[in-house]
Parts: sequence; structure tokens; C-alpha cells
Amino acid sequence: MLTIAVDAMGGDNAPACVIEGTIQALRESDNRFSVVLIGQSDKIEPLLALQDTEGLNLRFMHAPEVVTMEDIPAIAVKTKQESSLVKGLKLCKTKEADAYVSAGNTGAQMAASLFVLGRLPGVLRPTIYAYFPRLKEGLTNIVDVGANMDCKPEHLVQFAEMLTIYQRFAAGIDEPVVGLLNIGEEEGKGSEVLKQAYKLLQDADRKGKISFIGNIEGHDILKGNVSIVVCDGLVGNTILKFGESIPGFLGALFKPALQKLVSSGQLDEKAAMLTTQVFKSMFEPFDVEKFGGVPFLGVDGISIVGHGRSSSRAIKNMIFMAEHMIEKKVNTHIAEVLSEA
Amino acid sequence: MLTIAVDAMGGDNAPACVIEGTIQALRESDNRFSVVLIGQSDKIEPLLALQDTEGLNLRFMHAPEVVTMEDIPAIAVKTKQESSLVKGLKLCKTKEADAYVSAGNTGAQMAASLFVLGRLPGVLRPTIYAYFPRLKEGLTNIVDVGANMDCKPEHLVQFAEMLTIYQRFAAGIDEPVVGLLNIGEEEGKGSEVLKQAYKLLQDADRKGKISFIGNIEGHDILKGNVSIVVCDGLVGNTILKFGESIPGFLGALFKPALQKLVSSGQLDEKAAMLTTQVFKSMFEPFDVEKFGGVPFLGVDGISIVGHGRSSSRAIKNMIFMAEHMIEKKVNTHIAEVLSEA
Repeated sequence: MLTIAVDAMGGDNAPACVIEGTIQALRESDNRFSVVLIGQSDKIEPLLALQDTEGLNLRFMHAPEVVTMEDIPAIAVKTKQESSLVKGLKLCKTKEADAYVSAGNTGAQMAASLFVLGRLPGVLRPTIYAYFPRLKEGLTNIVDVGANMDCKPEHLVQFAEMLTIYQRFAAGIDEPVVGLLNIGEEEGKGSEVLKQAYKLLQDADRKGKISFIGNIEGHDILKGNVSIVVCDGLVGNTILKFGESIPGFLGALFKPALQKLVSSGQLDEKAAMLTTQVFKSMFEPFDVEKFGGVPFLGVDGISIVGHGRSSSRAIKNMIFMAEHMIEKKVNTHIAEVLSEA
Repeated sequence: MLTIAVDAMGGDNAPACVIEGTIQALRESDNRFSVVLIGQSDKIEPLLALQDTEGLNLRFMHAPEVVTMEDIPAIAVKTKQESSLVKGLKLCKTKEADAYVSAGNTGAQMAASLFVLGRLPGVLRPTIYAYFPRLKEGLTNIVDVGANMDCKPEHLVQFAEMLTIYQRFAAGIDEPVVGLLNIGEEEGKGSEVLKQAYKLLQDADRKGKISFIGNIEGHDILKGNVSIVVCDGLVGNTILKFGESIPGFLGALFKPALQKLVSSGQLDEKAAMLTTQVFKSMFEPFDVEKFGGVPFLGVDGISIVGHGRSSSRAIKNMIFMAEHMIEKKVNTHIAEVLSEA
């Protein structure tokens, strides 16, 4: 039976939401896998005692130290060996667990995953991607979203290759399509790094490793013509955080505009409520919780990171994502493709 | 009297919209300045003949060649010396005109402005910025938005200095505030270029050239805590184009959601119309036409570039922007500040 290690201390709503999400995952999956919940016993055990966990494949492991959102990644990994983060990843390393899941400090998880698990054969730099809404059916991933600065052309190409494998084997996309984010569509646009990346992506396309459609621009991201947007971590991180701020920004403009119509008597309360529903439904494609979290691609093990704001539903879906990554053998495929010449 | 050279051939709606916008600018300003409209006589003169231009400070200049949106900038500048672009900028160089305004090929205008007008003393790289909507009152500019790739730290600092001068003298902002776009707020985040830029921006702050609040992230752009967002041209261009695609993306989600409520009888036609008004009003802060266009900062002359989709209203506002740049002596201030050690 598969075992998934879950960081009970990670995220703004930990440990309560993590405990709830874990129990939901075990119930919904009918105990298809087992979970080791890791964290401080004085925080976790009283909460666990309030829940009905009888018959669940759930055990608890004490970890006295905690990595916080404020911890500096490289330092946290070295000085907090008794944290849920390091203990959880070590369970994966020794094969006592098959995957690790956390909604904690992303930088620290990246550093610890690299340190404890190492890289898959052939991988230059592990990476992290994000989901984006799109007009067309399907899904769009952007890679890298902050793990890698100053990417070299060969890094960008590996990001495209790893995400292509992920989408093919674990996301049910038969033909992932890669676009290189640039300032214009024509070949020869952009920085030297982008010009060289363009050529290397063409090579990878010719070898059948990816399907590359060329340069794309900022306005192409939401269109959905590509399933994989490749860029440096600074660009991806900025677009991701900018995108996340849009629903709140528009909400702040929407509410007073609607209120004006209500108080002037042009719209009655019922219509205003329906209008608010329409407004909210517009942002359903922005709901990233259905994916829960994303794996670090390229590390020699499965380490799934979630948003700090993760709800119990997000935690549950992250656990399912972990199970999925294990079963679809994404890492085996990555190692195969990236160690080829 | 000031003279403004207007490219009659630039933009998707040229020459009709350009002619209309020019006439509106002269009428509204009560002939405060004069305009030289430059373009192909067989295209322009028949349209001008349909308009009532009596008493307007308007003259026409024939330019047989046209720079198109498809032209490669560096080549267009060299091979199309008889275009409205090159002829208009040459009028500025010989002081027959005080500014040049166009909604044509931005890259070609940048190249031609540099080639014909040159740089202001002390300027390493001229730049181009964009306007962004914000929650707080005031305005936010992002610089650079595509003119400069692979920026060095000293380039980013000059962008901040030039835009600070522009906002102080021409945009009525007493205290422009600069933020450096990065992947995290803490000092020491990001690439080597960003780390060095951070230090140089602190130096410029200490010298009183700018007011620097430190690193900002993608979700800070719409907040309005800074009036100047500094980044490399690739990041700025991507954010700009991504932002421009949002109203259309949400519109495509909004319409069917609203239609569903109407056809199910939950919302009547009148309420649906009002709701659509609310939706549209949400995007008023995204209306960049009120600014018309932006000047290339750092060139030794005034060259204003507008969006390819510019309407006659945008052209009119670009002409007013040109007048404003001349009167506020923005270039004199830039040369003063940037030639200091």
C-alpha cells in the first residue's frame, strides 16, 4: 500500500485544515493509501482526538521543530533537522513513504527536497510550475514560477520537457503544446537567452520530446493555445502573483459600482444578488484549489507543495495529486527522457 | 508657437482617425499650437478635403514611403528615409517641429528616434513605460515595457530616475515612489542583477534622486503603493500584454454566465443590461486612451508613441501629451539629473 507523508504544520490554516483534509482524503479514497501525519504532538494530538479516525490508515509522527514562512530556506534545512519538513522528506528517502505533501514554506521545501532527495538523473535544475485559467478547454501550466532565476537556455528546455512528461502521463493531455514567453512572436525576438532557447526548443521538438509552437506573448497566456508556457522564474512568479491579485482588484471595483445602482433604485436587491453570483462565477476558472498543489519536477522523489492559504479541500486534493504522481510513474519517465543525449 | 509633427500613417485606424484626432486637438486647444500632418498625399488629401479645416493651424507634408507594423525596425529606419516616421523626426532634429507623435510601429519609432534624435546627455538607454490601473487614487507606471532586454542594474536605476522626473514635472505627482519588481519583498531576493539594482536604487534614494521603497511583487502592481514599477523589458512587456488581455478574457466568461440567468428567467432584460453596465464600468480604470500615448524617455527630443489601436480620442490626447512634455521641459530635467556624477 502507498504511504503519503503529510506536513501537519504547513500553511496558514495548519494544523486544523491539514488534519481535516487528510481525513477527508482517506475517507473519500476508502483507505486506498496510508498517511503519516507529521508535526508537534502537543498541537496535533488534541485536534486528532476530537476527530473520528477509527478505521483510517492514519498514523502520527512527532516532529518537535517547525519551519515557518519566515525561515530562510537554506538555513532552515540545515538547522531544523527535527522539523516535519526534513523528517517527512527523509521518510521518502528511506522509502518508508512514497511522497511528501506540504502547504508550508515553498523555498524551504524546494531546498530540503533537493538536499534530502537529490535530483533525478540528467536534471540540471528542478522546477516548479503553476496552473492558469484559460478560455479553451483543458489547462495551462506556466513554468518556472520562482524556483529558478537567471535561467540558461538549456534549463528552459528541460522545464518544457519535464512538464510535457507530467502533462502526458499525469494530466491526461495527449499532445502538450509548448510556447516560449517572449516580447514578440517572430523568431529572433528577445534576449540572447531566449533566442538560444528558441533553437534548443526546436531541436527538442524535432526529437519528438516536446511539441513547440514558437514564441508567445503575455496576451496569449489566457487564450489557451498552448498547454505549457515556458519562462524564467522572475517572469513566471510575477505573472502568477499579478494574476492572483486580479479577482480581488476587480471585486473592489465591482462592489461600489453595483451598490450605486442599488442605492439609486435602478437595480433591486434580488437582481443585485444574482449579478454578484455572475461576478463570482466568472472567477471559477481561477480556482486553483481543485489541483491542490504542484510537484517539484526533477527531484528524485515526490514532493508536493501547496499554497500557504490551502483549505482542507486543497490539502485533500494535494494528497490525491501525490497518489497520482506515484501511480503514473512521472519521475521514471522524466529520468528516461532527460538522461538521453 | 509650438509645432507638433503628427504621423498620419501610423496605427490600425490611420489615416482617418489620425486626421480626426488632430482636428479635435486643434479645436479643443483653440489653436494653441500648430500641427504638421505627414503622410502619403493620395491617402491624406482626399480625407482632409472632406473636413472643415478653415482657421486651424494645420498644414500637410507629403511623405511617399510608409513604415508598416510588419517592418523590421532597424531596416525600416535605414531604407525608408522618405517615410512619415523619418521625415517627422527630422523636423524635430532641425527644430522645425517641437515633438513627433505616432501610433505606428513602436520598435521602428524607437529605433528612428535614437538614430535621428540621439540620446540625452548621461542616458545609457532610452526607455518606454506603460500605465496601469490601480486601487488607490493616482497612477502607476511600469518601466521598461519592451524596449530593453537584458537590463543591467544601472539601466534599471536610470529608468527609475527618468520616470521620477517625468512624474514630478509632467504628471503632477509630488512624491513618486519607486518599487523594484522581484520574487519577494526581502532585500537579497532575486537574480544578481536585481540584487545589485536594489543597492543602486538605495544610493539614488540617498542622493534624493528617487524615493525607493524596496522590492515589490506581482500582486503589488494593482495596489498602488508605488507610482513607478521598475523591471526588465521582458517582464514589463509580458505583464502589460497579459493585463490588456484580461477585460476580453473576463468578458468571454461574463456573457454566457449572464445569458444563463436571463434564459432561465432569473434576471429580466433590464437588470441584465444594468449588470452589463456594472461589468463595463469595472474596466474603466483600464482605459489607457485618456493618456493617449507615452514618450520615449531619454531621447534628445520628444517622440510620443501610441497604441496601434488608437482612436481619434487617443490621437488627440497624444498631441496634448506632446505639448505637455514640451512645456514642462522634462528633457532638460532628465539631462540635468542624469549627467550628474
